[in-house]
Parts: sequence; structure tokens; C-alpha cells
Amino acid sequence: MKRAAPPREAPVRATRRAASLVIVNTGDGKGKSTAAFGTALRAIARGWKVCVVQFIKSDRWKVGERDSAIRLGVEWWTLGDGFTWDSQSMERTEAVAREAWRVARDKIASGESQLVVLDEITYPINWGWIPAAEVVSAIAARPASVNVIATGRDAPSELVDVADTVTEMRNRKHAFDAGIRAIRGIDF
Amino acid sequence: MKRAAPPREAPVRATRRAASLVIVNTGDGKGKSTAAFGTALRAIARGWKVCVVQFIKSDRWKVGERDSAIRLGVEWWTLGDGFTWDSQSMERTEAVAREAWRVARDKIASGESQLVVLDEITYPINWGWIPAAEVVSAIAARPASVNVIATGRDAPSELVDVADTVTEMRNRKHAFDAGIRAIRGIDF
Repeated sequence: MKRAAPPREAPVRATRRAASLVIVNTGDGKGKSTAAFGTALRAIARGWKVCVVQFIKSDRWKVGERDSAIRLGVEWWTLGDGFTWDSQSMERTEAVAREAWRVARDKIASGESQLVVLDEITYPINWGWIPAAEVVSAIAARPASVNVIATGRDAPSELVDVADTVTEMRNRKHAFDAGIRAIRGIDF
Repeated sequence: MKRAAPPREAPVRATRRAASLVIVNTGDGKGKSTAAFGTALRAIARGWKVCVVQFIKSDRWKVGERDSAIRLGVEWWTLGDGFTWDSQSMERTEAVAREAWRVARDKIASGESQLVVLDEITYPINWGWIPAAEVVSAIAARPASVNVIATGRDAPSELVDVADTVTEMRNRKHAFDAGIRAIRGIDF
């Protein structure tokens, strides 16, 4: 797949203007949320109002991104109280995800932010905690100025259908699989 | 690929500590550079010194990320003078890419940054402007504290081999293919 030479012609140009986009970052690889947060910072640099809603939260994951984003003026909703693996607290985790969706739905409908990031929303959708149809309706009915980025593995087909751009982050090789622990500063 | 229920067990833990990682973001999809910049901001939030070297630069692309990153203290080298598609200025573009590599090589070897991002370095490698073997040697001989992230399509196999983590961003659907123009704030 190597190119022998750089391209000599400019790429074709798209001509249609969309008022806003729906972007989905999915797949089993790294970078889904990180790319979304990078886009959020780009939007902030352009003077936009940006809101991030995290649907799943672990204790230390994404703390660095969150701190940088908040410093730059991103409105950041972490309603999750930590993702837990025992069934006892699963009911509470589900309630938190539903509450996060209520916040996100209002943020999308209000039109106050030009970008709303639904971080890891695919999990509560796939687990049946948030109806996919409700998410798609909220996105389809959004004010024209509101861009939406949704992240998480196994994006449901309804979400893929409503999206303008879908990127699949695929894991081709991972340090973790070689037994290497996550590094503070890089992985969290 | 939907999960019927959330996982009930914590994932296995990796046990080996690496002093630093080599990460490659490749593929034809979006998010390769943006995820790298997101990781850079995470590292900055952890108090690291971070250096980004851009090997290819278009006139407006990534300006938002660059501005946010610089505001947060990232050392950002844009030696490229704009990627051009005419053969006349290609010679100059090549010289700029080679100069960018000299800067990047020194930054890696000095150990002064805990993270060095080689943004879009795969292109000048694949075009034969920078020897892949030289890049791999510089990475392999780096001080133990220096993490490296390389981005760009068609990562050469030598780079994949030296990497701990390789993510392929795949384009599953793209607004551009539907004729929709890039949006300021989202795409640039």
C-alpha cells in the first residue's frame, strides 16, 4: 500500500455544506474518545461552546483529558460514579447512565452548544439501558447548529445510519496484549 | 456484535511495566492525528513535557489543535510550509520534511520531552524522503523515558514492528463521500 511518489494533484472538493455533522468513533482499538476530545479542543479553539457527557467512567481513565478540556472551557458532565463489575452496583450504574442520557438529550435539544460529545454512549445503548431509537430521534431532531460525536465499541446500526462520518478504530497491535501495563501520562 | 449484558468481571491485568511506549495511529480514517494530540494533552495534564513535530502541513488543517496545545504548553514544531500539489514546489516540501526529521530525531535523542509526536511522518517515509531504517533506529535508541507517537496512513512495516501499540483508523462512512464540505470547528 506504499505510494511510490506523493500525489501531484489536489483531491476533489466536496461542494455541499452541512450545518452540522454527526460523527461516530467506534471499534475495538484506542483513540475513540481521545479523538473526540481532540475535536472538542479544536472546536473550543474556534470559539465554540462544547459539552461532553461521559456515560461510563472508571476511576482514573480520562482524568487528564477532562482536566485539560475543563481548563480550556469545555462543559464536562461526569455523571457516572465509576464503572463497576459487580452485579450489586450494576443497577445504580444503569440509573446513572439513564440520567446521563437525560442531561445529554437536553443539551442536544437546547442548541446552546455547537458540539455535544456522547462519550461511550454505545455501551448503555447495547446493554439495553438507553433505547437506540430515542438517541437517534434526539440526534435527528437536533437544532441545525449542533454537531454530535458519539463514541464506544460496537456502535449500533441505528447510530451508524444516522451518522455522517463513522470511523472504526481497529486494534492491530496492543502493548497490553504483550503484558505491558498502562502508563500514566499516556494511557490515563 | 452487541453484548446482551454488561461484563460482570473485571478484565485481566497486565503485569509488565514498560518505561515508555511507541504508538502508531494509521489507516485511511479520521482521528489519527487528533487522537495523538488528545494523548499529548493528557500527558501535559500529567505534568509531562511534550513535543509535536508536524511533517506535513496544509494551510488550515489542525490549526485549532495546535492553538489549544500551545496554550497548554506543548512545544509544537511546524516546519512544513504548506503541502502543495504542484511538482515545482515538491522539492522544497521534501527539504522541509527532511529538516523536520532532523528536529524530531534530536528531540527524541535528547530525552527532554517524555512524549514526542511525529505527526504524519509516514508520508515522507513512504515517499522515500526519510529512510524508515533511520526512524526505527532513532526510536529504538531513544532514552527509556521517551514515548513516541507516529501518525499517518500506510504505516511502513518497519514502524509497525517497532511499535508497542498500533491502531488502524478505518473509514467506514465519511461525510465527504456524500459531498459534504468540511466544517470549520469540527474538521479544521
